[in-house]
Amino acid sequence: MCEINGERLLSRIQTLGRIGFQDKTGTTRLSYSPEYQEGRRLVEGWMREAGLQTQVDPVGNLTGRTPGKGPRLCIGSHLDTVPGGGMYDGAYGVLAGIECVQSLKEAGYASRRPLEVVGFIEEEGNVIGGTFGSKAFAGVPVDAAMEPNMAQHGLTPEQVSASRRRGQDYRCYLELHIEQGGTLEQEGLQIGIAHGIVGILRYRMRVEGFANHAGSTAMSLRDDALVKTCRMIPWLMDRVTETSPELVCTVGTLQVFPGAVNVIPGRVEFIVELRGPRMEVMDRLIQAFFQQFQAQGLTGEEYIRQSPTLCSPALIEESRRLCQALNFSSRDMFSGAGHDLINMAQITPSMLLFIPSRKGISHSIQEYSAPADLVRGAQLLLELVKTLDQKEGAL
Amino acid sequence: MCEINGERLLSRIQTLGRIGFQDKTGTTRLSYSPEYQEGRRLVEGWMREAGLQTQVDPVGNLTGRTPGKGPRLCIGSHLDTVPGGGMYDGAYGVLAGIECVQSLKEAGYASRRPLEVVGFIEEEGNVIGGTFGSKAFAGVPVDAAMEPNMAQHGLTPEQVSASRRRGQDYRCYLELHIEQGGTLEQEGLQIGIAHGIVGILRYRMRVEGFANHAGSTAMSLRDDALVKTCRMIPWLMDRVTETSPELVCTVGTLQVFPGAVNVIPGRVEFIVELRGPRMEVMDRLIQAFFQQFQAQGLTGEEYIRQSPTLCSPALIEESRRLCQALNFSSRDMFSGAGHDLINMAQITPSMLLFIPSRKGISHSIQEYSAPADLVRGAQLLLELVKTLDQKEGAL
Repeated sequence: MCEINGERLLSRIQTLGRIGFQDKTGTTRLSYSPEYQEGRRLVEGWMREAGLQTQVDPVGNLTGRTPGKGPRLCIGSHLDTVPGGGMYDGAYGVLAGIECVQSLKEAGYASRRPLEVVGFIEEEGNVIGGTFGSKAFAGVPVDAAMEPNMAQHGLTPEQVSASRRRGQDYRCYLELHIEQGGTLEQEGLQIGIAHGIVGILRYRMRVEGFANHAGSTAMSLRDDALVKTCRMIPWLMDRVTETSPELVCTVGTLQVFPGAVNVIPGRVEFIVELRGPRMEVMDRLIQAFFQQFQAQGLTGEEYIRQSPTLCSPALIEESRRLCQALNFSSRDMFSGAGHDLINMAQITPSMLLFIPSRKGISHSIQEYSAPADLVRGAQLLLELVKTLDQKEGAL
Repeated sequence: MCEINGERLLSRIQTLGRIGFQDKTGTTRLSYSPEYQEGRRLVEGWMREAGLQTQVDPVGNLTGRTPGKGPRLCIGSHLDTVPGGGMYDGAYGVLAGIECVQSLKEAGYASRRPLEVVGFIEEEGNVIGGTFGSKAFAGVPVDAAMEPNMAQHGLTPEQVSASRRRGQDYRCYLELHIEQGGTLEQEGLQIGIAHGIVGILRYRMRVEGFANHAGSTAMSLRDDALVKTCRMIPWLMDRVTETSPELVCTVGTLQVFPGAVNVIPGRVEFIVELRGPRMEVMDRLIQAFFQQFQAQGLTGEEYIRQSPTLCSPALIEESRRLCQALNFSSRDMFSGAGHDLINMAQITPSMLLFIPSRKGISHSIQEYSAPADLVRGAQLLLELVKTLDQKEGAL
């Protein structure tokens, strides 16, 4: 068995995590910033050390490839962070990929197929828009909302087109990531085998009441939009919880109108986000919500509908088998968060693997995964690469 | 019996209401604006017609007085409106006062004591601060928060001091107002005999949760500050409703942090306002609220504590007696809204009377009181003035 160099992997995570790091705030390495460029140069150097030929495409994605012909085994994730993020989200998947290639090379393993490691730019979407880099890479159309941000950073549609890869050049895409949720830790498990990435449904909701004087209107004569809303939101949350442990529901923004201390709220607006593996289940929940509360002034409209992304059944099967063989405890799950894999899965069979996140915290200076978990995940990735390299036929 | 000229009163309300009126918006006559000056000049002319000697004090309060010595019977309310307000709030009390004086004069009634009608400036508080005009009039200290607004309008502390009246010059203060609530209409009653103005308690509240990724955090692992808040607010509202029909509670502002569609709310801030005739009842409710929810992350602090204002028992008694004599149906009540009377009650025995507001709507283009109710209220005011003019001794 070829073991990865855990010490080197951990040290690289720390070194990269220090670029853009500020005390109390965390790591801020926004795409196209000087910190980002510095981080990417560092990673590019490690890729070369691992024997990879590097290239930065016109939108800024970094790739490193071993020589050879035929469809490549691609391992990737992103190099940008949110403002005040952690050092594991994204970076771990890229550095683990490099580590696999380097360890295999050092062990004298000669891969049959070319290996490619990708460090995507702008997954977080704080600069241009979410998963911009992998959208360009996989040829997924860029949202219209990203265009002004592109222009501001001197990025043209031509550069986006020129960054596009062909699916036929890829055998598969593997992404190793921290869970960013607390399920693995909670259940004491080591590996999460993602069947895919949940679908997302977002609704803009509105509850109408009647704005009136907060002093002179008796409680019995009020039509208070906020009090009504307060009775609706927990109802929806309870239904979601009852329906399936794979579903989540969030109301992350809520505005009260007119929004004065001494005026009874006449209108409340909020956004409901549902995520889950099956769109029809979420649709039914939203319909039940409307049915329950429309007489109380609830209306709303869908404005985002993103179908679930599915991992390759063959890759899920291989991952399960390897976990058993390596004696890694694991569970099947769905990813609640989006990843570059959403785009890569459009052009090649893809697989997403998780390791535990302490307390499920991410996008925060408190983001943490234990060294043993980080090393274990990379080891699984290496075994998966070897297996897929040797396996005959399509995936 | 001396009857007021209802037609003249109604026509004046309409004429004044048109100054600053805009279709679909309502009447906007903010203190110190050109519209306000125009409205005040109009009212001053009507005061002169009624035989009153007029004066505008240094902060802008308009008074009209009949000649004579000794403590005056004062009738007043305010001439400003909120942005997009109605034509009855404030204006009605001033014009009814003028109408009483004019009708008495026309009927040949010679009052024993001087009568004064006041049109206060800036009761609504959209320019300088709430009840600024009557604060200056009654010598109630102006809030520090009003000082920058005063400076911006060229108003000095010296002008405020120079506007101060002496309590010994007043026999009483009478304010006739639209209810701005729906109780009289709901109960089919004609007159509200206010025992005073409720006290106000305001708390800034905070509910702490834990912000986290809205996709990858299972429902069972969340500490969602908004969902917790949604369970707290209706609890408080229900307790308030159970406690007394005289109490009201409003949460008019609420903010969610960090306030992103895809982040579980980590903190919610909102303001609880309680109004009622007894501070200790409200204090107990707030304490029960904290006790119930402190384990769920609720904290808060009081930032406004305004004691109730009480009307003069003798004047309440006279008002009741007159309603019976005139066969006006009435009920005792507390005013949930503040009025200039809060300040005037500091220097002289005061009385607040209400007429019905359609649907309880105020501070809106929809504000409306029926002609018969407007005339009836003014008639009661006239009878009260006559009674108090003739009555011997202090009130």
